Amino acid sequence: MPPPSFRLEPLPGYTPTIGRLVGILLYARQTTLAAVEGLSMAELDHLQDGSSNSIGALLAHIAAVERGYQCITFKERPPTSQEQGTLEPALTLGAEGRRLLRDKPLEHYVHELSEARRLTLEGLAARDDAWLERPLRAAPAMNAHFAWFHVAEDEINHRGQIRWLRARLGSPATLE
Amino acid sequence: MPPPSFRLEPLPGYTPTIGRLVGILLYARQTTLAAVEGLSMAELDHLQDGSSNSIGALLAHIAAVERGYQCITFKERPPTSQEQGTLEPALTLGAEGRRLLRDKPLEHYVHELSEARRLTLEGLAARDDAWLERPLRAAPAMNAHFAWFHVAEDEINHRGQIRWLRARLGSPATLE
Repeated sequence: MPPPSFRLEPLPGYTPTIGRLVGILLYARQTTLAAVEGLSMAELDHLQDGSSNSIGALLAHIAAVERGYQCITFKERPPTSQEQGTLEPALTLGAEGRRLLRDKPLEHYVHELSEARRLTLEGLAARDDAWLERPLRAAPAMNAHFAWFHVAEDEINHRGQIRWLRARLGSPATLE
Repeated sequence: MPPPSFRLEPLPGYTPTIGRLVGILLYARQTTLAAVEGLSMAELDHLQDGSSNSIGALLAHIAAVERGYQCITFKERPPTSQEQGTLEPALTLGAEGRRLLRDKPLEHYVHELSEARRLTLEGLAARDDAWLERPLRAAPAMNAHFAWFHVAEDEINHRGQIRWLRARLGSPATLE
């Protein structure tokens, strides 16, 4: 994994404001992957307590949120009930997540994240800064700039929880 | 508290890219304040386990990180040892934080956060987009855009932990 960049600035292949946003998305993802590096299936499935989400479930959630916002921003519509069904229970987490989101190795979650991210970057590369800040047809109170920041923000929120949970696994702890 | 905006776009009083960044800072702060609303001193001081930071200590940390980056970006130098002393133990957290960062009501932390934020917004309003993306004299691998995103990112990371901790206090839980 290349070291994360500590600059936010326009990036080749994207219009300037989209490039800065992509810098945020890439940084967030690198820190998430660093936070889970080397975890075993048992560690990914570990439940800190009865109402906790496992680290694996949080990774599935991060990928599902990204898929959901691809729909709202790129397809400009809410997910269909079939798409929504595919994204659940990772979107909602909780009891169903604890029951279903388990028994997968780290590679599974990393693959899900990479596949989602590939489509996000393709979608953002094909659009421009005017699109980024127009209200979304599927959610007019929001623009795509906020929507994609929110995807990173939700990921960072859960990465904070992943670091906290990992520090209590007994495996080498990452900083909180 | 006004409802958070779900748009990132230029804001009056700031150059365009700084305005979008201020939107991120404001959104992160509103969600942090929402996550701690109504907490008592006992809840702010509660330690989930022996290596946990209290919610109060995490709020102190968020304000201290903001103060530290004001120095690096606006004064273009690292904190002096006296400044660093003032910011510790909130910057480092851990054992010293558990010992010292306690016995304060929510208003204390909110005031610290507001005072730090006021100076941040003043500093950003007085600067422009060219400044934002130039390498920092005090940290040349970084630009101010990344530095201020990182302040929001660190806050969001700890807000994720605050939500997790609050959900286990027995008080009305916020969403993870």
